[in-house]
Amino acid sequence: MSEPKKAVVLLSGGIDSTTVLAIAKLEGYTCYAMSFNYGQRHKSELEAANVIAQVLGAETHLIQNLDLRLIGGSALTSDVEVPKDRSESEMSDHIPVTYVPARNTIFLSHALAWAEVLDASDIFIGVNALDYSGYPDCRQEYIKAFERMANLATKAGVEGHPLHIRTPLINLTKARIIQKGVDLGVDYSLTRSCYDPDRDGSACGHCDSCQLRIKGFREAGIPDPTHYKDSSS
Amino acid sequence: MSEPKKAVVLLSGGIDSTTVLAIAKLEGYTCYAMSFNYGQRHKSELEAANVIAQVLGAETHLIQNLDLRLIGGSALTSDVEVPKDRSESEMSDHIPVTYVPARNTIFLSHALAWAEVLDASDIFIGVNALDYSGYPDCRQEYIKAFERMANLATKAGVEGHPLHIRTPLINLTKARIIQKGVDLGVDYSLTRSCYDPDRDGSACGHCDSCQLRIKGFREAGIPDPTHYKDSSS
Repeated sequence: MSEPKKAVVLLSGGIDSTTVLAIAKLEGYTCYAMSFNYGQRHKSELEAANVIAQVLGAETHLIQNLDLRLIGGSALTSDVEVPKDRSESEMSDHIPVTYVPARNTIFLSHALAWAEVLDASDIFIGVNALDYSGYPDCRQEYIKAFERMANLATKAGVEGHPLHIRTPLINLTKARIIQKGVDLGVDYSLTRSCYDPDRDGSACGHCDSCQLRIKGFREAGIPDPTHYKDSSS
Repeated sequence: MSEPKKAVVLLSGGIDSTTVLAIAKLEGYTCYAMSFNYGQRHKSELEAANVIAQVLGAETHLIQNLDLRLIGGSALTSDVEVPKDRSESEMSDHIPVTYVPARNTIFLSHALAWAEVLDASDIFIGVNALDYSGYPDCRQEYIKAFERMANLATKAGVEGHPLHIRTPLINLTKARIIQKGVDLGVDYSLTRSCYDPDRDGSACGHCDSCQLRIKGFREAGIPDPTHYKDSSS
């Protein structure tokens, strides 16, 4: 019997990355979950990620500390207000203040380092080019360019063991992602999406991330298990 | 008068990155120096970098904390012994245990984030494809692939303000780098190269980095201001 393949799975604790972890497990990978404590205001996602990694059977869960507040430039790592109640066209037309400069590049770079040490063949990331917030680093062409760079950067790539950046959700709507996860037995009550949660963990219901989540569950015809602070939202 | 261009300069405190900072200043950039406290055993390079940033007139010096010891895989971030007295052919033929997986990718990714926040047009990095230690992420094709990826990753790139990764030393020997730096008035006594220094900061004289430094000064015909613990080396 051949050894199971290893994958690093970027896990934020939200719907997308949780679904991705379930998919990687289904494909038979031994999964190494990786999260980042980067100074985000919504730190509760790290606790969620930790529980999800255990429940879904990740081999281990590594939280890397890197304080992106020193660099700044985002509402998610500063006191700038998180925008609320943006329309769908606003989300798709403008890169919002919640964009964290080069975040996926930083996360994938750390995952690349870990993949090289583990001798993992794949990195899974839950980027999505449809129901997303207009971030440039969620597009297929960006991911392909990162993969190409990664295979020139590392010992493994140079020695003929190419690494693959896997994006199983890139062309799915949020509703399809949720349906897929439910089919795989994912318990979405464990996940956190809100950019601006209350201290008790209640979601705001109005930031881009909450709005995409609410719409996704509605379109999937599946009850949203999230506790929103304003239950009318 | 047009505004001076901004650059992020990766500064380790060694010969190469110090020379690069001097070059960027000469070209008229306002320089933002960036170093990393990544769990390296030779932390004294960070103090050196701080002094160098001030002496050479960087606008500011940011030290980003990111503990790569959690990821491991390198003699520079673990208890694995740093190899000594390797021959030149050993250095060029094998990727050594001092290789830190994906280090330049991680450093450049953080520089990319800062460049985007600062609206800087260039990132300077002192990689060198000649007198180097056999690391894959020091080659021109890697740098080009990173630049391409970077311009797909960021708001600036997407909005038509491409970022340039500048590698002014990539085709120079260590001796030529030192000559160039001396011409620009760089005081190399401020720089640190050793991977395995004594507690008092004395260089070992035998690791790859010390050997390349010693050879560089010898070939340049310039006295090496470094204090080596074994003065016979």
